[in-house]
Amino acid sequence: MNFASDNTSGAHPDVMAALGAANTGHMPSYGADLLSDGVQTRIREIFEAPEARVYLVATGTAANALSCAVLTQPWGAIFCHRNAHIEEDECGAPEFYTNGSKLVLVDGADAKMDPVALERAIAHTGRGGIHNVQRGMVSITNATEAGAVYAPAEVAALSEIARRFHLPVHMDGARFSNALVAAGCSPAEMTWKAGVDVLSFGGTKNGCMGVEAVVIFDPKRAWEFELRRKRGGHLFSKHRFLAAQMQAYLTDDLWLKLATHANEMAAKLSSGIQAIPGAKLVHPTQANAVFAAFPRGAHKRAQGAGAYYYLWPFDQSLEGDENVQLAARLVCSWATTPEEIDAFLSHLR
Amino acid sequence: MNFASDNTSGAHPDVMAALGAANTGHMPSYGADLLSDGVQTRIREIFEAPEARVYLVATGTAANALSCAVLTQPWGAIFCHRNAHIEEDECGAPEFYTNGSKLVLVDGADAKMDPVALERAIAHTGRGGIHNVQRGMVSITNATEAGAVYAPAEVAALSEIARRFHLPVHMDGARFSNALVAAGCSPAEMTWKAGVDVLSFGGTKNGCMGVEAVVIFDPKRAWEFELRRKRGGHLFSKHRFLAAQMQAYLTDDLWLKLATHANEMAAKLSSGIQAIPGAKLVHPTQANAVFAAFPRGAHKRAQGAGAYYYLWPFDQSLEGDENVQLAARLVCSWATTPEEIDAFLSHLR
Amino acid sequence: MNFASDNTSGAHPDVMAALGAANTGHMPSYGADLLSDGVQTRIREIFEAPEARVYLVATGTAANALSCAVLTQPWGAIFCHRNAHIEEDECGAPEFYTNGSKLVLVDGADAKMDPVALERAIAHTGRGGIHNVQRGMVSITNATEAGAVYAPAEVAALSEIARRFHLPVHMDGARFSNALVAAGCSPAEMTWKAGVDVLSFGGTKNGCMGVEAVVIFDPKRAWEFELRRKRGGHLFSKHRFLAAQMQAYLTDDLWLKLATHANEMAAKLSSGIQAIPGAKLVHPTQANAVFAAFPRGAHKRAQGAGAYYYLWPFDQSLEGDENVQLAARLVCSWATTPEEIDAFLSHLR
Amino acid sequence: MNFASDNTSGAHPDVMAALGAANTGHMPSYGADLLSDGVQTRIREIFEAPEARVYLVATGTAANALSCAVLTQPWGAIFCHRNAHIEEDECGAPEFYTNGSKLVLVDGADAKMDPVALERAIAHTGRGGIHNVQRGMVSITNATEAGAVYAPAEVAALSEIARRFHLPVHMDGARFSNALVAAGCSPAEMTWKAGVDVLSFGGTKNGCMGVEAVVIFDPKRAWEFELRRKRGGHLFSKHRFLAAQMQAYLTDDLWLKLATHANEMAAKLSSGIQAIPGAKLVHPTQANAVFAAFPRGAHKRAQGAGAYYYLWPFDQSLEGDENVQLAARLVCSWATTPEEIDAFLSHLR
Repeated sequence: MNFASDNTSGAHPDVMAALGAANTGHMPSYGADLLSDGVQTRIREIFEAPEARVYLVATGTAANALSCAVLTQPWGAIFCHRNAHIEEDECGAPEFYTNGSKLVLVDGADAKMDPVALERAIAHTGRGGIHNVQRGMVSITNATEAGAVYAPAEVAALSEIARRFHLPVHMDGARFSNALVAAGCSPAEMTWKAGVDVLSFGGTKNGCMGVEAVVIFDPKRAWEFELRRKRGGHLFSKHRFLAAQMQAYLTDDLWLKLATHANEMAAKLSSGIQAIPGAKLVHPTQANAVFAAFPRGAHKRAQGAGAYYYLWPFDQSLEGDENVQLAARLVCSWATTPEEIDAFLSHLR
Repeated sequence: MNFASDNTSGAHPDVMAALGAANTGHMPSYGADLLSDGVQTRIREIFEAPEARVYLVATGTAANALSCAVLTQPWGAIFCHRNAHIEEDECGAPEFYTNGSKLVLVDGADAKMDPVALERAIAHTGRGGIHNVQRGMVSITNATEAGAVYAPAEVAALSEIARRFHLPVHMDGARFSNALVAAGCSPAEMTWKAGVDVLSFGGTKNGCMGVEAVVIFDPKRAWEFELRRKRGGHLFSKHRFLAAQMQAYLTDDLWLKLATHANEMAAKLSSGIQAIPGAKLVHPTQANAVFAAFPRGAHKRAQGAGAYYYLWPFDQSLEGDENVQLAARLVCSWATTPEEIDAFLSHLR
Repeated sequence: MNFASDNTSGAHPDVMAALGAANTGHMPSYGADLLSDGVQTRIREIFEAPEARVYLVATGTAANALSCAVLTQPWGAIFCHRNAHIEEDECGAPEFYTNGSKLVLVDGADAKMDPVALERAIAHTGRGGIHNVQRGMVSITNATEAGAVYAPAEVAALSEIARRFHLPVHMDGARFSNALVAAGCSPAEMTWKAGVDVLSFGGTKNGCMGVEAVVIFDPKRAWEFELRRKRGGHLFSKHRFLAAQMQAYLTDDLWLKLATHANEMAAKLSSGIQAIPGAKLVHPTQANAVFAAFPRGAHKRAQGAGAYYYLWPFDQSLEGDENVQLAARLVCSWATTPEEIDAFLSHLR
Repeated sequence: MNFASDNTSGAHPDVMAALGAANTGHMPSYGADLLSDGVQTRIREIFEAPEARVYLVATGTAANALSCAVLTQPWGAIFCHRNAHIEEDECGAPEFYTNGSKLVLVDGADAKMDPVALERAIAHTGRGGIHNVQRGMVSITNATEAGAVYAPAEVAALSEIARRFHLPVHMDGARFSNALVAAGCSPAEMTWKAGVDVLSFGGTKNGCMGVEAVVIFDPKRAWEFELRRKRGGHLFSKHRFLAAQMQAYLTDDLWLKLATHANEMAAKLSSGIQAIPGAKLVHPTQANAVFAAFPRGAHKRAQGAGAYYYLWPFDQSLEGDENVQLAARLVCSWATTPEEIDAFLSHLR
């Protein structure tokens, strides 16, 4: 009953098998191996983007921060949601990699940027000419930190605003797979067809060991990315082991199957919680995470029985009145089982 | 009739005279001259701070950004008001000098941080341990960008919150003199006695040519400041010419007299505007700037007659209905004359 | 016959097995798992350093650059050999992570810093006070980029110079294991007993998939390291997979056995080459790499037969006179076999 | 008898007069005044460069570091002489402003880069592709730190090498005026006609109070420069006072007259020293500085009589054998008088 995060799960057996299969003899290092080449080819196919350049790194923070660094100058503002991972969970990695960009925070329900709020934020920034930070880029997280999903049309609406101000668009897709299967569209529709220039395409949270692909739809930005990746210490020497994970992940739609499973588990969990008297959702359940409030007594029982998850926000306390509602973030992954969910729900009730 | 900023005025004759007087023969460079030494001594006296270290730079942005860089690590948040100069008017200089700190924005009326909002912002930051930016420092602007003044007790209240979280406190005193004479307290009461660790003590906007003193009350931070100043290109070789300005500024209370004059001019302007039918203050007039709304027709007449000032916010338009109220920022300086104000008011009416 | 680098080899089967074994169920992320804790405990034992703090990252560049960033300020010089990896092979990662430190280059045979040259370089730096970069830290690479090994006494001699100038000492131990078995001393003797403050302890080149341990002997520097690692995007969420590699590496002296093997293969290769008429070593063979010059004709035969390795320096050409000597870098690893070496030598002859 | 530096002198009376003349009433701030505009126009004329963009800053370090930051990426090497000011005297400002460029040091007599050495350094850099820092830019100091002067043809020879590698060229002209009058060529011949892209055109050391003009011959780089200047805290609000200095400096060839005088004083000093038994030049005297060795006894007499200058290198001692030769750096300026030189020489003898 571990719902603390999708990164508390391990790697899918196919991913582990691919690592073993890749472990044969010598291979050129630093990404010059055939496996790495094959991954780029496969991602180009999946995204219908024959010109795209694909780079693998091991963490989502690296993928995001490096992407920002190639998309904006140090004096460019990064427009993102107030609860974006790049704002709240990366210890300032974007500021470090960009050499001091400012993140300008945009509001919106369920950690989705409201288009009106985005436009206002962009319009407000840089009006003072040289005295202000300039307009730099837009970063969209899909699925969001609140478990919500932007439909392609919603992404396109934000991108269009960005385009009007000549700003590039990044998508933090640490949970891209979950968003995609929820939205029921193609990878191309969710990204470059909707105006996305660079995608952080996550593998780690959805069954890989540690790999994210940065997909750069405009190849002109690629060489700079390569230099920044190396300079950031994110170029693996035994690169085949990043590639092997991604290869397995993309074979036979494994990535989609795992995300579908995780989303289904979240839907099941969400339904179960909503059936509990007094419980209610804090955010709609659209991807693989459930944000719900239910009585403190239920939390105590569940955690006492060994369930792991975070109260949300963090600074709530399990001490006190049993009937008070406390919110929880409950994340499902490829490894979550229906049995875990049933057990968890039984403790809540 | 130029109310665009206090930096559109020139330098006071005493300051110019001091430059001439300092221009005699050879002197050691880089601040090793006697004039520079004398300035430190004088500022220590004025601030009753015999241990303080004093460094001169030529711009307010340099003073602020260097101060931030010695007070926080790159991963430390800088808590400041949403409209602080370091947030809105320095093109990201604090982010650049700190190597990527995040400015966390605090609300409050008249560009003064609300203590409750500050405490909430600090408490919210860094709760996630290693994943978030950490709590770094607090920066207070006095007088504020909206022309308001913190009393010493108000500064102390913010500092006490900072202290509770072990954070150092910076004061952006680009208009320190105006704040001080408005508050009617001593320099020590407004700064270290109220918990301020480092002060950007402005000269430029109040009658100097281009000089700001960074007053570091804790000498342990001084050597790092010196290195950062040099590395930032802000150490003058012919340093005597910074020192001479500051020396004249501090002689015979010139700095206080000029600030008193500027504040009086603002008070006169403020009264005059309030007497105009339909006009009203947007912020209280406490220092040397007036923020007031009055009919578009009056703006047209004044600007047509040669008055310079900014509509506030910038993106208002003089086109359209004459009766609609538009707000203005009108800044007085040591060089503003009663005659200018009378002429301006006559055009408004 | 691949001698291009020790990173063209794969991972040792024990390492792969450990990854599989670690892939069971949920574990806390970001290093809070028991495996990660066990690795720290084991490294403390091996290094006889019960207070040491151990942090895992996936690349040697990350280990080195992060280590430099905690050991020196941006204005501090990093003293290292002219051919150090941090100078020549990391695309400026140390400059990036330190926010602009200057690498001051020290000469010495076989990529080992000459103590006299080091002392001269340190003494020369920072004499001009505020105008120059300051003395920051010393970084020693062991084994060196030229395949040579510092004995503990040699490390201690350099550290003593550093200590005299109050400078901390980093050891780039990407090939620490190879150096250690060559020197025949204990890990403690090679590091903290010889004055090393922080060690980049390499796993990747010696049989792991991608893991390096940063061993910080002074725990006061640990928290800053943690923040910098996170901010650099180098904190793995599924951290168990870094820990598992290192755990296997340290079990039953696997790390020492693999390094011993690699060094033996290099010795065999070195002997074989020296027996070829006209061939001679460019650097002594002390660890797992051979630097030797032999006739262009021999290079052509070997490379024609499928041998992979780098001419050294890079810009030599295989075109031209068969008898001219060209130097090569030939690196052996845990995976190099005696048969490969025999085959290679037969092609050379 | 102060030969410590050309920055120990004050400002020329014409410069001071211009400051006074500029101090009349209100003027737009931040460089939007007519004086600033006039300076750009005048510099365009002087340099026969109608498209050039001209930016004023107050220190040479700012001019150089900002210029580097617009000419190279963080991963680009800056090729400069081992004794360049940007390498030895700016506390790492170029590394700070570029976010971590590496200065690659080139040898050559009299602090002039040897073209062969420059070409070798460039060719050597970046051969390893992504693993190394890339080739970034070339920076030429004229006059050099050793008082030597590059003729236009020598500048062109270095620029041509740079051009072959597609690298832009910066000239650190803190003593540009001295170099120009020594070379007897036009400003255009010394700069853009010889391949220079950006010039730091010094005023401070040659009679100004504190002003340097950055002349950007390719206007495409201008907007980035403006943003970096603001972000570095180097945009003056009362900008007229930078402009006024430069205006006076460029009026009636004052800049050339002052440099001619300084050079003549150095020539006189150089001749006088060479006439002393046992004295000899360390570098040829081509601009306004004399580098000469003469007996310790003569140093003692001169310094005892109140002469100020630096022993070169710094760590020589006046203690010991009277007959041992110690070298000195003796810098003349616009303010040096023939009488000072005669007095100094009389003490030496």
